[in-house]
Amino acid sequence: VSETRTSNSPSSARTTIRRHRERGNYDRSVLYAILDEAFLCHIGFSEGDTTYVLPTGYVRVDDALYVHGASANHMLTALASSPQACVTVTLLDGLVLARASFNHSMNYRSAVIFSTGVKVEDLEEKLLAMTALVEHIVPGRTSDARPPTPEELRATLVVRLPIEEFSAKIRVGPPIDDEEDYDLPIWAGVIPLRMTSSPPIADPRLIAGLDVPGYAADYPARG
Amino acid sequence: VSETRTSNSPSSARTTIRRHRERGNYDRSVLYAILDEAFLCHIGFSEGDTTYVLPTGYVRVDDALYVHGASANHMLTALASSPQACVTVTLLDGLVLARASFNHSMNYRSAVIFSTGVKVEDLEEKLLAMTALVEHIVPGRTSDARPPTPEELRATLVVRLPIEEFSAKIRVGPPIDDEEDYDLPIWAGVIPLRMTSSPPIADPRLIAGLDVPGYAADYPARG
Repeated sequence: VSETRTSNSPSSARTTIRRHRERGNYDRSVLYAILDEAFLCHIGFSEGDTTYVLPTGYVRVDDALYVHGASANHMLTALASSPQACVTVTLLDGLVLARASFNHSMNYRSAVIFSTGVKVEDLEEKLLAMTALVEHIVPGRTSDARPPTPEELRATLVVRLPIEEFSAKIRVGPPIDDEEDYDLPIWAGVIPLRMTSSPPIADPRLIAGLDVPGYAADYPARG
Repeated sequence: VSETRTSNSPSSARTTIRRHRERGNYDRSVLYAILDEAFLCHIGFSEGDTTYVLPTGYVRVDDALYVHGASANHMLTALASSPQACVTVTLLDGLVLARASFNHSMNYRSAVIFSTGVKVEDLEEKLLAMTALVEHIVPGRTSDARPPTPEELRATLVVRLPIEEFSAKIRVGPPIDDEEDYDLPIWAGVIPLRMTSSPPIADPRLIAGLDVPGYAADYPARG
C-alpha cells in the first residue's frame, strides 16, 4: 500500500477507470463502504489458459478480505497458489430508464480489487475470519451459533486477500438523455432496486420453543 | 455444442462441479431459467498476467448471451479478441443459518459459462441484441423507448457469447447440521432473499402529464 497516495488517485494503471471516468473512485473509505454493505463477491482467477469466475461470501477485516471453504475447494486452493486474483463486488441500486433505448443504464456501486491470496495457517486468525464472516453476513448470529471446533477450523481453508490495488465505480441519479430527446412524451426515471428479506423459514427439525431471533426476523435490506 | 450429449452430463472437465456434486446441473433448461431470471453477470477475462472481473447486463437470445457497451469499452474489446471468457451469473435466494457456524451456507442458483466472444458487425443483429437487452431487463420498455438510430448502433459494441460449455449449481432447502447438533437450543432455518423494487423516481426533467408505466410501477421481484 502506498501510504503517500492521495485518497482519490488510482493505485495502478490497470485499476484506472477508463470509461465514464467521472464514476471512478479510488478512496479507500468509499471502497470499504461498498465492501461492508455487500457480502457476495465474484472472484476471477486463471489457471493455464482458463479464466474462472466463481461467487462466494466474504468479509473485510481491516485491509484484507477473507474467503473460506472446504480444504479441497478448487477456487480457494487456486487462490492460495495463484499470482493474482480479481475480486469484484457489485451493489445494484436501480434501473435507469432513459427516453432513448441507447441511454438506458443502471445505478450501481462496484468494487474491483486485484490481490494475491495468502492461505491462512494460524488457527486464531482462521477462527477470527470465520467468525467475522458469519457476523458480517448475519449480524448478531455469532452470539447464538455453536462456534467452530478445532477440527472444523482445520477442515476449513481460509484465504486472506490483501486490499492494495483497487478501484470503485459508482453511478447515481437520473437518466442522461440527448438534449433533443427530453421533449419526447416518454416516461423516464429510475426504478430503485435492493435485496430484501422475507420472513424466515424455520428448519423442519427445529426443537420446540425457540423463537425466531430478531436478526433473522428483521434482516435488513442491503445493496 | 454436442447435440448428442445427455442433458445432465458436464460439457467439459473444467465445468464439472467438484465440490457438492449433488448441487451440480448440466441441463440447458436449468441454465436458461437462471440466465433468464437474472440480468447482471460478472465476466472474467485475462490480458497478459492480469485477470479482470467486471459486472455488466446481458440478455440470452437462443443459445448465446449478448453484452454491449461503448465502442471503446475495455472489457468488450478484450472479449472480442480474447480466446476465452467466463460469464458467471448468481441468484442469491437465501441465507442458511445452521446451528453450527461451520455449517452456515447460502441458497443460490448460479451459472458458469466458458465462452469465446464474437464482435457483432451486422447492424440488424446489433439492433436485435440491444432491443432484447432492454426488454429483458425491463419487460415492456421497448414499446415506449425511442429505438436506437443507425448512428447509435454504430457507436455500440455488441459481443455475442455462444453458450456451449457451462454448468449450473443450485443449493436449496434447510441447513444441514451435524447429527449431534440438532438438539442444541439454537434457532436454525433460512432467511429468504430476493431483489425487489421500490416506487420509481421520475426524472426531474420529465414533461408534464406522463404516468408511470406499469412495467416500472410494478417491476417484479427477481433473483
